[in-house]
Amino acid sequence: MSAKIGILTVSDRAYRGVYEDLGGPAIHDYLSEVLTNPWEAVPLVVPDEFERIKAALIEMVDEAGCSLVVTTGGTGPAVRDISPDATEAVCQKMMPGFGELMRTVSLQYVPTAILSRQTAGIRGKALIVNLPGKPSAIRDCLDAVMPAIPYCIDLIEGAYLTTDESKIAAFRPKPK
Amino acid sequence: MSAKIGILTVSDRAYRGVYEDLGGPAIHDYLSEVLTNPWEAVPLVVPDEFERIKAALIEMVDEAGCSLVVTTGGTGPAVRDISPDATEAVCQKMMPGFGELMRTVSLQYVPTAILSRQTAGIRGKALIVNLPGKPSAIRDCLDAVMPAIPYCIDLIEGAYLTTDESKIAAFRPKPK
Amino acid sequence: MSAKIGILTVSDRAYRGVYEDLGGPAIHDYLSEVLTNPWEAVPLVVPDEFERIKAALIEMVDEAGCSLVVTTGGTGPAVRDISPDATEAVCQKMMPGFGELMRTVSLQYVPTAILSRQTAGIRGKALIVNLPGKPSAIRDCLDAVMPAIPYCIDLIEGAYLTTDESKIAAFRPKPK
Repeated sequence: MSAKIGILTVSDRAYRGVYEDLGGPAIHDYLSEVLTNPWEAVPLVVPDEFERIKAALIEMVDEAGCSLVVTTGGTGPAVRDISPDATEAVCQKMMPGFGELMRTVSLQYVPTAILSRQTAGIRGKALIVNLPGKPSAIRDCLDAVMPAIPYCIDLIEGAYLTTDESKIAAFRPKPK
Repeated sequence: MSAKIGILTVSDRAYRGVYEDLGGPAIHDYLSEVLTNPWEAVPLVVPDEFERIKAALIEMVDEAGCSLVVTTGGTGPAVRDISPDATEAVCQKMMPGFGELMRTVSLQYVPTAILSRQTAGIRGKALIVNLPGKPSAIRDCLDAVMPAIPYCIDLIEGAYLTTDESKIAAFRPKPK
Repeated sequence: MSAKIGILTVSDRAYRGVYEDLGGPAIHDYLSEVLTNPWEAVPLVVPDEFERIKAALIEMVDEAGCSLVVTTGGTGPAVRDISPDATEAVCQKMMPGFGELMRTVSLQYVPTAILSRQTAGIRGKALIVNLPGKPSAIRDCLDAVMPAIPYCIDLIEGAYLTTDESKIAAFRPKPK
């Protein structure tokens, strides 16, 4: 059975079609390069609206059965940036280590990395991770957290993900 | 038009006058050295009282029109240390990257840097940042986060801040 | 008077006796090596139940008079992992710097360190710190945060802890 992975682009401009969605395809390309298990993308573009983001996350996890949902965009301090808030609203548990590590890694490139409020959390059997909107930053963030994602999803009883070890060495502790 | 910047000293002893306020002047000196745009300080000293800190923050942002408010003191674990809590109570959005980076930087000097609960957040068109009480630690923290502050304030539609690049290289991404 | 230190093992399997509690003894051994003041352990094993963990933490702080409570286990993303949530529920103040530093240190060993939701907080005159379940990770985490713990407990008016400086150099700022 193929794993389902939600790819949620959060952007007023991409939603209205005045701006090409670059974040969603960047995530799709990355996962295609790195994952070696069968998987299926569940893509969606929504505007920067709290209720729309929440509804999309819930639908992707509860209805579509995604084990992983990756969002792009809406992580900054601006008034319309509310992806982390919507994520927190639908999660039972927050995973602060994801945001900490992604900001630390992004700080190697730009000092404004601290402006990202990106976070991650667990809803049911899914991990939800916020990424920035910019494709190069998406890649840096995924490189940082991807090694921990397959084991995280094992622990919450989601799909079994495997990676191309030459690109990302997913870590699973040896069974005791 | 000159930018307004709130400088809020939170200290029972400074408020009662039994202790000279060193934190507020340290912040004022730092900003005078680094900022090159016209700006005006809105200084205040309050005791470590939750409601007094909240009221001061709200007044500085909503009435005085500050684009940036910097607090000093009250960030530790002691029962009277409640600056971060009062900050969180008045902000619409928290910015976890500020506290993370300031603690990381302070850890280079003292292992007790992890005892600081300092945070930052957004209220309306203002960024509020907590700093420690000690002048040398204030300087280390501001050096760390200042490069990201002007762009942060752009994003929330506050005043346009500029810095002396020989001291702090404020980062603004190139417009697309 | 000897300091009281709670050692709370959170584990369904250890509680039922199907698995030997390794975390609690690892914490006890570590503290015995490092602390030089008289102290007394208040050990307990509870299952991964929110109310049981909360009750144990409250009992250790409010009734037994512990100045420090260290938990082991239950910090991950799995549905039964709720030690950080129970900790947050009983604390008046959270201390984000502890979790940040412990995750950073653990990341040197395993990329899955970001899956730990471990945190720390203050309840009354006690510091509560979550540790992972694995003895080697317990040691890495305690090495990282122990230098700051005695001063933290001074600030909240708990017991006066001292350490063997050849092992852990507890830091106390010089009085002004």
